[in-house]
Amino acid sequence: MLQLPPVQRADERLHQVEHDVLQNLKLRLEALDTPGELAGPPETLGQLLEVSMEQSQVQAQRMLVSQILAGLTADEARILAAFSDGSAFPMLTVYAGGRFTRGEVVYRHSSVGRAAGTQCGDMIGYYLHRLFERGWIMATGFEEAKRTEYELLEGDSGFRKALSQLQQHWPKLKPQRESVRFSPLGHLLWQQLVADGEADREEE
Amino acid sequence: MLQLPPVQRADERLHQVEHDVLQNLKLRLEALDTPGELAGPPETLGQLLEVSMEQSQVQAQRMLVSQILAGLTADEARILAAFSDGSAFPMLTVYAGGRFTRGEVVYRHSSVGRAAGTQCGDMIGYYLHRLFERGWIMATGFEEAKRTEYELLEGDSGFRKALSQLQQHWPKLKPQRESVRFSPLGHLLWQQLVADGEADREEE
Amino acid sequence: MLQLPPVQRADERLHQVEHDVLQNLKLRLEALDTPGELAGPPETLGQLLEVSMEQSQVQAQRMLVSQILAGLTADEARILAAFSDGSAFPMLTVYAGGRFTRGEVVYRHSSVGRAAGTQCGDMIGYYLHRLFERGWIMATGFEEAKRTEYELLEGDSGFRKALSQLQQHWPKLKPQRESVRFSPLGHLLWQQLVADGEADREEE
Repeated sequence: MLQLPPVQRADERLHQVEHDVLQNLKLRLEALDTPGELAGPPETLGQLLEVSMEQSQVQAQRMLVSQILAGLTADEARILAAFSDGSAFPMLTVYAGGRFTRGEVVYRHSSVGRAAGTQCGDMIGYYLHRLFERGWIMATGFEEAKRTEYELLEGDSGFRKALSQLQQHWPKLKPQRESVRFSPLGHLLWQQLVADGEADREEE
Repeated sequence: MLQLPPVQRADERLHQVEHDVLQNLKLRLEALDTPGELAGPPETLGQLLEVSMEQSQVQAQRMLVSQILAGLTADEARILAAFSDGSAFPMLTVYAGGRFTRGEVVYRHSSVGRAAGTQCGDMIGYYLHRLFERGWIMATGFEEAKRTEYELLEGDSGFRKALSQLQQHWPKLKPQRESVRFSPLGHLLWQQLVADGEADREEE
Repeated sequence: MLQLPPVQRADERLHQVEHDVLQNLKLRLEALDTPGELAGPPETLGQLLEVSMEQSQVQAQRMLVSQILAGLTADEARILAAFSDGSAFPMLTVYAGGRFTRGEVVYRHSSVGRAAGTQCGDMIGYYLHRLFERGWIMATGFEEAKRTEYELLEGDSGFRKALSQLQQHWPKLKPQRESVRFSPLGHLLWQQLVADGEADREEE
């Protein structure tokens, strides 16, 4: 049943697993012993409130950072890295709704996925959605200098397919040309994640 | 302390646990050994970025799919299945705000929960909120043919209770009659999740 | 490699770990044996749909509650507790956009963090974002009586820094004075989480 990988590397791998298991056990022992930390996900609201009464600022930051990291994929981390120096990228935004009300955003597309070198090129619309929902990014105005990039985006087949699905409900729908970049929260979160990584390296 | 279940099925269950534990150990061994995969949730941003440099498209999809699945309940999976053939359902949407600005959505109610056979009937407002936030669904126009369904929805006690709480702040608030259906992202995500399940079956 | 904590408490801690491990094993055995429950996160959409066919209402609620709890930090639990009696707190909301359209929310700030005694004072903008996204809270009108509190908020250095970043894109941007309080969903979710905690205590 177990298809074990080649024998010659088995020793090394077992060693790693052993280290990993012991490391986990250590963290677990410490968490059980440490006020302000939970050994696993909370089982009740009361547990969370209890922990909050004993938590230091560093522990509260760690708890938040670990929840942020658990909600990011590797592709999304690449996209965030592309934004982290303050860069903006062309974005097409499709707003539902009629002539007088702009309505909700129903689709987004951007060149940031290609620029960042993500693996799932067809998921860029969803990556943008997730990063907007998590507060990382915001939409700002059209940049005249990038006219060609906008035209390329408008021709992408995934985008055209989504647009034609939407036009079944709103026949006159047109994408807006905007830019996408880090929000103030995005800059703040990036700083937290980078600082947290550095603290971890120092501890080792 | 351990209240063990009836003995006659214990052997079978232990066998399952053993299989489960070995399976987990196998996955863990493989993940430790496999570039582009993480054995658990990322501990630092650096780890995610490192993984991204070795990740294949299939691995990137898997990472995304597992995060999507971890954020769905069984009731929500039933609701998504009800939408998956392109069906639309009546929805009441309550927008905060005054006479001239439509404002944010503050509550939603729909018959899709009943149609899908969810267990938690009183949580439909929250299920809709979560599925909108995750990009699965969108709101389109009122459907004249479903007039009776809208009237039934407007009479539901949970909805009336929420509306009266909101009317303490906006006395003239009225629900809008809309429809709810898969967004283009919803169709895309559903395809991914179904394809991923089929790939898993083939591997076994 | 294992830096064990002081010996005199080691016995007690090991006892706790043992209890924890056995408890986990018990839950796992039960979940494997129990229709309507999953022993871990779902691996495929099909698994979720299968579970949904055998799930009771209590099991469906548990699944939802555990996902809600996994997405809250201890600081956020304190904030929710501050809202739970119906209290409202002053909030500054920054809307992107020009003279005629109000645009999306790009930043929020509130005194609820200080009132709740959170550890990460500089993360209040992000906590508000997360709680809005998760449906817990909503924005209502300015409260004249709290004029001084709004003025204090407008002077906070984190808020001023975020505002000046945003004014690079929208020079005339001004924060709106609003209030923040539980939404109808917030009241409902709080009741569920409290009821769930009480049910757990009774079982023990």
